[in-house]
Amino acid sequence: MILDTVSHSTYVHGYSERETERLADQANALTHLLHHDTSYPPGSRVLECGCGTGAQTVFLAAGSPDAQIVSVDVSPASLDRARARVEAAGFRNVTFRVADLFHLPFAEASFHHVFVCFVLEHLTDPIKALRCLARMLRPGGSITVIEGDHGSWYCHPHTVEASRAVECLIEVQARLGGDSLIGRRLYPLLVEAGFREVRVSPRMVYVDSSRPELVEGFSKNTFIAMVEGVREQALAQGLTDSRTWDKGIADLYRATEADGTFCYAFFKGTAVR
Amino acid sequence: MILDTVSHSTYVHGYSERETERLADQANALTHLLHHDTSYPPGSRVLECGCGTGAQTVFLAAGSPDAQIVSVDVSPASLDRARARVEAAGFRNVTFRVADLFHLPFAEASFHHVFVCFVLEHLTDPIKALRCLARMLRPGGSITVIEGDHGSWYCHPHTVEASRAVECLIEVQARLGGDSLIGRRLYPLLVEAGFREVRVSPRMVYVDSSRPELVEGFSKNTFIAMVEGVREQALAQGLTDSRTWDKGIADLYRATEADGTFCYAFFKGTAVR
Repeated sequence: MILDTVSHSTYVHGYSERETERLADQANALTHLLHHDTSYPPGSRVLECGCGTGAQTVFLAAGSPDAQIVSVDVSPASLDRARARVEAAGFRNVTFRVADLFHLPFAEASFHHVFVCFVLEHLTDPIKALRCLARMLRPGGSITVIEGDHGSWYCHPHTVEASRAVECLIEVQARLGGDSLIGRRLYPLLVEAGFREVRVSPRMVYVDSSRPELVEGFSKNTFIAMVEGVREQALAQGLTDSRTWDKGIADLYRATEADGTFCYAFFKGTAVR
Repeated sequence: MILDTVSHSTYVHGYSERETERLADQANALTHLLHHDTSYPPGSRVLECGCGTGAQTVFLAAGSPDAQIVSVDVSPASLDRARARVEAAGFRNVTFRVADLFHLPFAEASFHHVFVCFVLEHLTDPIKALRCLARMLRPGGSITVIEGDHGSWYCHPHTVEASRAVECLIEVQARLGGDSLIGRRLYPLLVEAGFREVRVSPRMVYVDSSRPELVEGFSKNTFIAMVEGVREQALAQGLTDSRTWDKGIADLYRATEADGTFCYAFFKGTAVR
């Protein structure tokens, strides 16, 4: 199998324990915002591409309990975790398969729906990926794409160093061939890949101290954790110095205090083959 | 009357014909997003502070047809337009009065609700303004505050010059004593001003070419028009040069083409005295 897509060496967030926790926290806090309007009919065949450790798969399975979901990922280790997570949650409507997005081992037009979440941002050629996914769909079948956009982040109080730390995350991901500003591009990407009836909606996360579950689940354990995860790469690549970095991280945490606020936007696109 | 608040000389957007059109376009395109969840009970007394030319007043009146709305502004000329606009729309539940936010000619606790939209961003002391407004409220009365946040803007394609043009708008407004990044601060401002039950929700505007009414009504006729409005000030203050400025404006329009996208967030806060 050729790993054209996200692999161990190029996945910006790595595969550590904290990364696994981060993905779980992120999924729990943001479930409703991202997934409440995704539900597939009984009997429909759904391909989830790039399921990782199954953080989104459990919500996909919960929202479509009578659909047949096939979740694939390039990482066998991630798939093992995904399988365990889905089994622990009691869902029996998901099968797992090691597969690469660009070389999917399925017949053309063999799915009613495709679901892809937090995957395109890591790819050097998201249009090619969308075209590969389109081929999996029956004519009239739908694709759902969810991506973040790190350029949508801002906070209060706001400092130059906090912005610099976030820019390092964006730059590290760009040097790995990804685009963490992809959320804003979903509409033109889906159109260019040949889909029709393209609709994109923003899913903005706003956090203040009246929402402690989001302060913990999103601001700290998702977003700041993600930024902190690229420290060594950012320093090694000379994107910042340790003093600026450390102040930036401290400033990000400052915005999670009682009078701070934190903003970020995800984008959810749907379209039809 | 002392004009502590928004006056002709310090209102960043000026009072031109295009500005009047801009405010009307903005109000039409964004009505539902900003106002759909504001409705006051029959007989309640509502103070709208800083109504300007009545762009929001018509929607306030429409949403609460049996409330008694008192709309005030420092500018008699703006109030004349507001009165004409509200009368033309057929509403009879609004009275108008020239008044300054910091010296309101009403008895303390004489209103059930206060509504203030796109006003705090122009003030040097928004906390003081909120405290003045709080005094107008009966105990248990509510305040609703709507503000934008120019730092929430981003687009695709994105260029340094486009960002620079928007930064000029932010900087010009800051030099007039305002804060066009105030949206993200509504929560701490309302808390510090002594309100309780503070809840802030983001209202994100996302525009792509499948939403032509927003391309025209928001991206071009609201946001880009607002940026273009500070050209002379930005150049006179040395914040940019004409070449960078012109490219920035062209780049902003570029993002309104078929494959472009445009993002912005408003914030709506409610709280109780």
